[in-house]
Amino acid sequence: MLSKIKVKYIQSLGHKKGRAQEGLFIAEGPKLVADILAHQPQAVETIYALPQWVAAQAAALVGVAVVAITEKELQQISQLNTPHQVVAVVKQWAAAEVQTHNRVVLVLDGIQDPGNMGTIIRTADWFGIQQVVCSMDSVEQYNPKVVQATMGSIARVQVHYKHLPTWIAEQQVPVWVTALDGQPLAGVGRVKEGLIVIGNEGNGVSQAVMQLATQYITIPRIGSAESLNAAVAAGVVLSYVV
Amino acid sequence: MLSKIKVKYIQSLGHKKGRAQEGLFIAEGPKLVADILAHQPQAVETIYALPQWVAAQAAALVGVAVVAITEKELQQISQLNTPHQVVAVVKQWAAAEVQTHNRVVLVLDGIQDPGNMGTIIRTADWFGIQQVVCSMDSVEQYNPKVVQATMGSIARVQVHYKHLPTWIAEQQVPVWVTALDGQPLAGVGRVKEGLIVIGNEGNGVSQAVMQLATQYITIPRIGSAESLNAAVAAGVVLSYVV
Repeated sequence: MLSKIKVKYIQSLGHKKGRAQEGLFIAEGPKLVADILAHQPQAVETIYALPQWVAAQAAALVGVAVVAITEKELQQISQLNTPHQVVAVVKQWAAAEVQTHNRVVLVLDGIQDPGNMGTIIRTADWFGIQQVVCSMDSVEQYNPKVVQATMGSIARVQVHYKHLPTWIAEQQVPVWVTALDGQPLAGVGRVKEGLIVIGNEGNGVSQAVMQLATQYITIPRIGSAESLNAAVAAGVVLSYVV
Repeated sequence: MLSKIKVKYIQSLGHKKGRAQEGLFIAEGPKLVADILAHQPQAVETIYALPQWVAAQAAALVGVAVVAITEKELQQISQLNTPHQVVAVVKQWAAAEVQTHNRVVLVLDGIQDPGNMGTIIRTADWFGIQQVVCSMDSVEQYNPKVVQATMGSIARVQVHYKHLPTWIAEQQVPVWVTALDGQPLAGVGRVKEGLIVIGNEGNGVSQAVMQLATQYITIPRIGSAESLNAAVAAGVVLSYVV
């Protein structure tokens, strides 16, 4: 049985302060936990799961701390409305330094919505982008809603937080920024090296970052919507340039 | 002052049952309400707004029933965590019959997440798609989270609900279905007429609809994510075909 203190401890990881204090975060559900076991096995601290999940996954759990729990306990420690068999407490891993030479790196300037952030990390993973660099004011990658929305891609894509104007200025690579009056996307061609910058949901790319652009690109608008969702924009741009 | 009964009545439109009974829905915030006033003015039943919004919009409100309310009343009737000046009660409008001749129509098979649905409607609007046809089990277009996520495009894009296997079979146009082993998107070219089908978040396109496909298309995967978010997939496909 989980002690009240343990339940409170796990619940505290649902909050930014608790995660920062402990250097841990929460990942839920069979798909996400399987991806973390496969790609970041050293990061798994403890897995709390229903007995049937433990029994089915036994072979993948060698050397992992596992606690079998009841449905009721799962309800208590889950961040989801509909808990899904398993909750993993995971150590936040340190991303290796960003490599920009001969790579395409996705840069996010002020993404606020956790669902958008998670979806963008998942989209980057689909298109083979292994590094995402976020501005310091972007939503935290270990926010439970971000983690869930990555659908497991959090275990494969390295996410960094940088003071973007400083960091971008230090890189010796092209900087592609989405803007309203740039080059139409279809004419850009495949990019082998450079930063692809996606801006904040409401305000777009900040002025300081905009000034560092070496190229401007535009997703041509045919109809009447004022803007595209940030994750949709990221997907469309990546589908043309990688 | 709003009576308790009026507050309850407006709150009831946050629920599917209330919306179905009254044939009304709720739209919130200056952007969304402005788009509805511009594109569906006849549908506005009553606008509840802070006095400063009413004063600023006075010119656009000729002939519209407007009730000035307090911040506290706005809190009570709003569906948002952070209410935003104005709540409009709007009549559900009947979409004209779907036109498929010489048009590209977006078809959604079982989209469940309101945020995804709203984002897809917004994305369709960006790419000039004026008609979206949804399966009967898709989330309702007048769900407040759908309406908000459209960012105003709900006022411009016609959304229909059909029994898809029956309806698609009646159309005499190409049916493009996203699938894992179809033609790579970049080779498809611009589509002048046809249905573009996007499937459910978890299960993709249903078997009955899959069988009606005349062409299969694929967004090539370079990395490791198992799937793309449905709204991202819709955006990527539309960016190539329209």
